[in-house]
Amino acid sequence: MSLDETARKPHDLLAAHLAVEMEAVNLLIRERMASEHAPRIPQVTAHLVEAGGKRLRPMLTLAAARLCGYGGPFHVHLAATVEFIHTATLLHDDVVDESERRRGRPTANLLWDNKSSVLVGDYLFARSFQLMTETGNMRVMGILANASATIAEGEVLQLTAAQDLATDEGIYLKVVRGKTAALFSAATEVGGVIAGAAEPQVRALHDYGDALGIAFQIVDDLLDYGGTDAVIGKNTGDDFRERKLTLPVIKAVAKADAEERAFWQRVIEKGDQREGDLAHAVALMARHGAMEAARQEALAWAEKARAVLAILPDDPIRDMLRDLAAYVVARIS
Amino acid sequence: MSLDETARKPHDLLAAHLAVEMEAVNLLIRERMASEHAPRIPQVTAHLVEAGGKRLRPMLTLAAARLCGYGGPFHVHLAATVEFIHTATLLHDDVVDESERRRGRPTANLLWDNKSSVLVGDYLFARSFQLMTETGNMRVMGILANASATIAEGEVLQLTAAQDLATDEGIYLKVVRGKTAALFSAATEVGGVIAGAAEPQVRALHDYGDALGIAFQIVDDLLDYGGTDAVIGKNTGDDFRERKLTLPVIKAVAKADAEERAFWQRVIEKGDQREGDLAHAVALMARHGAMEAARQEALAWAEKARAVLAILPDDPIRDMLRDLAAYVVARIS
Repeated sequence: MSLDETARKPHDLLAAHLAVEMEAVNLLIRERMASEHAPRIPQVTAHLVEAGGKRLRPMLTLAAARLCGYGGPFHVHLAATVEFIHTATLLHDDVVDESERRRGRPTANLLWDNKSSVLVGDYLFARSFQLMTETGNMRVMGILANASATIAEGEVLQLTAAQDLATDEGIYLKVVRGKTAALFSAATEVGGVIAGAAEPQVRALHDYGDALGIAFQIVDDLLDYGGTDAVIGKNTGDDFRERKLTLPVIKAVAKADAEERAFWQRVIEKGDQREGDLAHAVALMARHGAMEAARQEALAWAEKARAVLAILPDDPIRDMLRDLAAYVVARIS
Repeated sequence: MSLDETARKPHDLLAAHLAVEMEAVNLLIRERMASEHAPRIPQVTAHLVEAGGKRLRPMLTLAAARLCGYGGPFHVHLAATVEFIHTATLLHDDVVDESERRRGRPTANLLWDNKSSVLVGDYLFARSFQLMTETGNMRVMGILANASATIAEGEVLQLTAAQDLATDEGIYLKVVRGKTAALFSAATEVGGVIAGAAEPQVRALHDYGDALGIAFQIVDDLLDYGGTDAVIGKNTGDDFRERKLTLPVIKAVAKADAEERAFWQRVIEKGDQREGDLAHAVALMARHGAMEAARQEALAWAEKARAVLAILPDDPIRDMLRDLAAYVVARIS
């Protein structure tokens, strides 16, 4: 595949630019998800990794390594590692959330069972650690081990913070780093480390992934309430029904008067939701400027992601990474 | 604590001999299971790690390192790593098996929920990888990553092999290595590696852990059917009720005539179990010498464990490890 005019999204441009290496990543993933003895493992894994995910995280690793001039083979291992960690967390998330659909298909826990999802997830975690040890680079192993711990800690925090109106923006940020940003930032950072980039560049790559992940998640939160138009579309309201403390809700709760607080307690803490409650929630968020404030934060994180790339080499990949940050927030701009 | 006459079991002798280092392991475990943000993590972990488990696996790591003359600090990290991996697998096992009791107490999945057990298990896996990276020793990381993959693969294999009469002794051995022996052998092997032991000694330590783990598991299988006396005690029959293909059952099925095979199909594959079936199963195993054959295998593995230690230094720890192998099979000798 070559760069062409039909590929306009930054993600597609990156995929085209890194096509040869992405193919190597896909081959390695397919090779390492095999199990001679337990065919259930590749069945469950293939169901998820071949469901047409965007492979955004491994692509970030490849892009960071290439941008820093890496010429060796191990960015492919690290990209596959990142995708395995991501896939393992998806398998476990779907068990924890009792999800029934992912990427438009039934989840593995529904097609097989929770047991298979838990154990195959564990297998992929272990495989990811095997893959990273093959790089022989102790520092990337520390970064990815730390990211794995942050992910799990964020998930547990989300579990205990959900439905709790005391959840503030500090906790929200920790949850978001666990859910999304920790693996984004590890993905970009290890690309720089394996390439032997200078410390300020490695730090910039980490910060890019972190900011990109946070912007991505805040946009997700906003779209679940209809974006900034406050128009309730067919896919809105999932977070509300699941009583999640997302950023616009946290901001609205912080400014709530007694009556509004009683409303949030009823719908979020008690889970007693009635017809019209979602629209009322959106109206309260609009009244306090919560949607707009969250939107401004997403834009600021995206801008930070773009800005930190300044010290990295002037290269088409850098432009694509910048455009990716802009693209992530384009839907709420 | 010092060695004294009241500590007669090899396990207690080892614990007394390694008391100072075991205390360091316990401190490190308590330090690393903390989570600033998610108190649920230390709660769930403490429930399990402070429930009075024997700490056999970390003790094997300490013993192997000391036996090979190690004077550094990292065997403590490796011992804590091994215990974290073990604890993570227990948390996930109890979810997969829907267990309600472990070590005489309600399981974490019962006290909290499956979600917490899955996510805290993931956290402990990640923490175990952080701990091992601190050793800076790439080889021990590879060994422990491989062991983690073998454990997860064995668990998935057990899931698909359960209730399937086609399960043969080859599959059984793979399941047992995953369930038990892989972590035992990794625990002893990394002790030798961190001590810089010669290759034949490292190999012997691996083989000791492997053989010890397999003997341990076969004994467990036998005791679940009342040991070699074929006396059904109060704790027998759990494996039968759970329709597990353990070694004595596999051996009896292999020699079954048509009528016996129909019995096994009914009770194991279909799960249609009636009064008197357990006693009949034990009688069939006795008729074909299945219990005795499994007993001989356990004794042979224990003997192998004792024998491979010959090339290790003549030291009280070596005697204790030998006695431990004998002790594991003493209940069926």
